[in-house]
Amino acid sequence: MATDADVTSVTEQAVDSLRGTADPRLRELLTGLIRHLHDFARETRLTHEEWARAIGFLTATGRASTGTRQEVILLSDVLGLSMLVEAVNAHTGPAATEPAVLGPFHLTESPVRALGADIDLVGGGEPCVVSGRVLSEDGTPLPGAVLDVWQADGHGFYDVQRPDVQPPGNGRGLFTADEAGRYRFRTCVPSPYPVPVDGPVGELLRATGRHPCRPAHIHFIATADGHTPVTTHLFVAGSDYLDSDAVLAVRSSLVRDFTETDDPALAEQCGVGNPFRHARFDLVLSRAC
Amino acid sequence: MATDADVTSVTEQAVDSLRGTADPRLRELLTGLIRHLHDFARETRLTHEEWARAIGFLTATGRASTGTRQEVILLSDVLGLSMLVEAVNAHTGPAATEPAVLGPFHLTESPVRALGADIDLVGGGEPCVVSGRVLSEDGTPLPGAVLDVWQADGHGFYDVQRPDVQPPGNGRGLFTADEAGRYRFRTCVPSPYPVPVDGPVGELLRATGRHPCRPAHIHFIATADGHTPVTTHLFVAGSDYLDSDAVLAVRSSLVRDFTETDDPALAEQCGVGNPFRHARFDLVLSRAC
Ligand SMILES: [Fe+2]
Ligand SMILES: [Fe+2]
Repeated sequence: MATDADVTSVTEQAVDSLRGTADPRLRELLTGLIRHLHDFARETRLTHEEWARAIGFLTATGRASTGTRQEVILLSDVLGLSMLVEAVNAHTGPAATEPAVLGPFHLTESPVRALGADIDLVGGGEPCVVSGRVLSEDGTPLPGAVLDVWQADGHGFYDVQRPDVQPPGNGRGLFTADEAGRYRFRTCVPSPYPVPVDGPVGELLRATGRHPCRPAHIHFIATADGHTPVTTHLFVAGSDYLDSDAVLAVRSSLVRDFTETDDPALAEQCGVGNPFRHARFDLVLSRAC
Repeated sequence: MATDADVTSVTEQAVDSLRGTADPRLRELLTGLIRHLHDFARETRLTHEEWARAIGFLTATGRASTGTRQEVILLSDVLGLSMLVEAVNAHTGPAATEPAVLGPFHLTESPVRALGADIDLVGGGEPCVVSGRVLSEDGTPLPGAVLDVWQADGHGFYDVQRPDVQPPGNGRGLFTADEAGRYRFRTCVPSPYPVPVDGPVGELLRATGRHPCRPAHIHFIATADGHTPVTTHLFVAGSDYLDSDAVLAVRSSLVRDFTETDDPALAEQCGVGNPFRHARFDLVLSRAC
């Protein structure tokens, strides 16, 4: 008995072909994928030539991905999908710190550092201090909370991109909050940087008239017992590209001034001259269910 | 000015990021892609782990594609997308022959052959004759119409898959219809065959409990002056997998009996013993606009 595949029935046939899927969640995901993919092709009346270009683009994107570069993640990032997945999975209350994308540079383990340490090992930019508290949503401090921090330097490069001038672990640190949930570290003010544009995603950005730049930011993952971890960014107020982040990850709740500050005690704790530029950034976690 | 990316606004931001796209059709396609992709992730509440598996799957699919293998096309095929693109682009009237997927084996130019020639150069299966006419939708014969034909042998393999036992061009032929729009050739009855299952798409088929097989078929591309070409299949009636084609390309209008036939004149024309198995398959083309 032949089935008949036409412009509508082929979708039902494709969905029905999944009836033997052992994992019900996989079946749900593939069903949704097929329905949306087919709706897209029907609504846009996708031509053979456009389909062939899309096949070629996806093939090149997969083939551009290596151990140290992930072009498919970059594609997800510039289409806003990565940020959407963060937002969809933020099982956190209204007071909790909002999430942002992990990004492609959390490649190595951050070195354990003492509170107040300098993560800028080579003088890669203007010195500054970042400090704050890790709190539960009701305002309770979370002593022993762990902060994984990584950032580009003042020239816009991560350590893994410039092994010639940055030692491994530069711009990275793993900090444990003190008995009052406080943390502090010294670093350099990060710089905006472009995502890699020498691959298929760079072509896509050029074809759509988009610049490849991200506003200046520091990455954080905050973890504490009994709480849902958060992966987020601290954005530098006044940075270029805050209104046009190439990966669409900016939330105004995550933007902080790096203010000129006169605080001899904190300057002493962080080994920086007084006055100094200082950003305060509290991380607020929701209790785990 | 920071934008705020949350679970709904990130979609509008991603769509708005396309405003500088020079080509309006590219903007339309990417807008539709972003909306459907984001709806999919929101509706399914796609988790980080599922997103990461999808990234890994797409990366592996791109990387499995080489000059002689196209795993991304195979993915499009098994999701029914390739067949849908055929159906969406069939600008043909109701009497015209329905299309089917091109498939991945139209890799080489088919050798020009005379009407009645045998395309089975090595005795690869049970002998048979395929004949018919190429017609315009109003029934007018189309003399000089060209038919590009290719098929797997009775063991389910194309020449390019078995260069050790099949010479190049085996199972392929380029025929020109006669003054009455007729064509005929001798071949062997094709066999069902599996799509390649040693890559990521094979994993997907196994995870969804799907077999990889296609029902027995012969590929045709019919071309005639002043008419829209059609890419299609002739399916063998009674073949296994007609109700579960791995690439969802079956249409009952394309299925033909390979009937035991007593026709000494046609047997003589095609150099086959009488009686013989015979499929009649007319190709009906729409006038080009
Ligand atoms: Fe970053
Ligand atoms: Fe085929």
